[in-house]
Amino acid sequence: MKTLSTVSILIFFLGAVSLALAGNSSGAGQQDGGAKLKYVEFSQLGNPAEVLVVKVDAPRSLKNGEIRVRVLATPIHPSNLLQIAGKYGVEPALPSTPGSEGVGRVVETSAEVTNLVVGQLVLLAGGGTWRDEIVAPAANFIPLPDLGSPSTAVIEQLSMTTVNPLTALLMLTSFVELEEGDWLVQSAANSAVGGYVIQLAKQRGIKTVNVVRREGLAEEMMSKGADVVLIDGPDLADQIASATGNAPVSLAIDAVGGETFTRLAKSLGHGGTLVAYGVLSGKPATLNTAITIFNDIRIRGFWLSKWFETAGMKEKQAAFGEIIPLIASGALKADVDSRFTVDEIKQAVSRAAQRGRNGKVLIVPNPG
Amino acid sequence: MKTLSTVSILIFFLGAVSLALAGNSSGAGQQDGGAKLKYVEFSQLGNPAEVLVVKVDAPRSLKNGEIRVRVLATPIHPSNLLQIAGKYGVEPALPSTPGSEGVGRVVETSAEVTNLVVGQLVLLAGGGTWRDEIVAPAANFIPLPDLGSPSTAVIEQLSMTTVNPLTALLMLTSFVELEEGDWLVQSAANSAVGGYVIQLAKQRGIKTVNVVRREGLAEEMMSKGADVVLIDGPDLADQIASATGNAPVSLAIDAVGGETFTRLAKSLGHGGTLVAYGVLSGKPATLNTAITIFNDIRIRGFWLSKWFETAGMKEKQAAFGEIIPLIASGALKADVDSRFTVDEIKQAVSRAAQRGRNGKVLIVPNPG
Repeated sequence: MKTLSTVSILIFFLGAVSLALAGNSSGAGQQDGGAKLKYVEFSQLGNPAEVLVVKVDAPRSLKNGEIRVRVLATPIHPSNLLQIAGKYGVEPALPSTPGSEGVGRVVETSAEVTNLVVGQLVLLAGGGTWRDEIVAPAANFIPLPDLGSPSTAVIEQLSMTTVNPLTALLMLTSFVELEEGDWLVQSAANSAVGGYVIQLAKQRGIKTVNVVRREGLAEEMMSKGADVVLIDGPDLADQIASATGNAPVSLAIDAVGGETFTRLAKSLGHGGTLVAYGVLSGKPATLNTAITIFNDIRIRGFWLSKWFETAGMKEKQAAFGEIIPLIASGALKADVDSRFTVDEIKQAVSRAAQRGRNGKVLIVPNPG
Repeated sequence: MKTLSTVSILIFFLGAVSLALAGNSSGAGQQDGGAKLKYVEFSQLGNPAEVLVVKVDAPRSLKNGEIRVRVLATPIHPSNLLQIAGKYGVEPALPSTPGSEGVGRVVETSAEVTNLVVGQLVLLAGGGTWRDEIVAPAANFIPLPDLGSPSTAVIEQLSMTTVNPLTALLMLTSFVELEEGDWLVQSAANSAVGGYVIQLAKQRGIKTVNVVRREGLAEEMMSKGADVVLIDGPDLADQIASATGNAPVSLAIDAVGGETFTRLAKSLGHGGTLVAYGVLSGKPATLNTAITIFNDIRIRGFWLSKWFETAGMKEKQAAFGEIIPLIASGALKADVDSRFTVDEIKQAVSRAAQRGRNGKVLIVPNPG
């Protein structure tokens, strides 16, 4: 009932907006006045605050199979900034529209679309999400289950469903079979992925040693469920052994690279696995291959983009099926540092690139 | 028939030797004169040529369950030298008797032993093999199948059955499922393990890129079945890509570490595995963890000692069951550089430590 009435209201509300926009169809290139449909684009690689520009779209009518979605919230991830800077695994074809995920509401569907209805919340899965509105084939969106009228806070959390929580879940479950009481260690533990790892591990009774590079973060992380918080340093492996009472650590998760990676490799028990998913230090690691031989240390990498390419539909459904209810119920969340409109993209990416920010930076074109 | 008569002759011959030794039972500590039972020992870690000493044993009668085996040939492996120097995964309890494998002939059995008969060839599996004769429980030996009267050359090859061929076989088969026509790359390809990898790969139709650190080895390696031989250098990954016609390489095997390891990691295709089993350079590797993430490079170590601890009986039987017939038939072999008696152990280990030697150094106390 709740959903139906929400949908009715939204149809009315968004319909009005659409009409207003339709009356302003000279749109492209304009940057001022009225309710323009703005989006972010870059046509050269470089510092995001310099190369990103805000453009304006003329609304267009739907083709068959397409839907129109108002973007409610879409996060800025480190991987987005790396890709804009040309420092990522794949180089974008230019010009390119950045943004990898978000949440939106369906405002119009074309005749052929039967699995989505106007008013429904969807995850944005087709890329180029830093914009007011997306018109795209229905297959580019993941329908969310009926959540009633979620709060703005929940909608913001839902905008971050895919990239970080799935990374955390898959790193926690795909490489090592951890059991209740087992220990894992992770670097960059105060990152969004780090926070999700803490929460997902806690729910499974897995204990976490959380390594960070500055003081003052422990309390916040303990409140999320961290068992141990340590400051990175040359004695990290000893610190970890002491914190776990020399329990064998069978999984280490690293987003830093460089010496941190090297230290995590040293901290693992026999047969332990070290999974790299980021190189925040920008530095290569030193690896004493004798320890990979004698301690049977296994080194792996995790890249969600590749997982999306190779995982089957069942696997994807299982992963989303685990994450979405946890986020919707508030059991899994990330800190939000600040919110910006599409227009404010330069301030937004500058803030996102700042060390010491307190959570994720969101673009909120149309607050939920 | 052949075997039976051989056994009879040996019983006679070895029986005579045993009597001669029994008459000289003041043995221990003596180093000169007569047919002493000599063995090698070290009571401090260090340079093998300095710390190894030759000792003499008084022959002793068998306890129940024991057998007496004349050692025919036993190799000197790099891992033996590392262990004597205290640079290996496990430190020996001192004093220690070195040597990890070999081949011998049963010369006496105790009443309880039913699976071994006098005259039979056995592999030495209990360690401390650099000696004239071994008295130990029957379980410390692996019976060889009836091979008729194998030549001295075959007996020498059988003395190297365990350490290197099993390492080669298990690295080739345990990490990546290679199919006919697939490529692998290996460093230290002119080592004994490298030679076995070439031969075992060739038998499976797997193509090998063989990386060495000096000129002049290609012809010999091609004769063993190598497809490509390359000299290591900063451009190694490019050399490999060019040699394979950019075919994806899914397995790299490294015994060098340092920059070679780094270059091999770069040469792998997406999802490729790099297996380390040695650190001949003595240097740590530099690992750009971004490539483990974006190219899904998997790093593993292989240590045969651990495999022996953890593998099941079936697995071990399968591995030996594949290797022994290949060696006995001459289809799998390693080069022998030189042969020394137990007395000549200092010359033997000096030669074994020399770069540029042409194969394995064997101790041949009682030529087959």
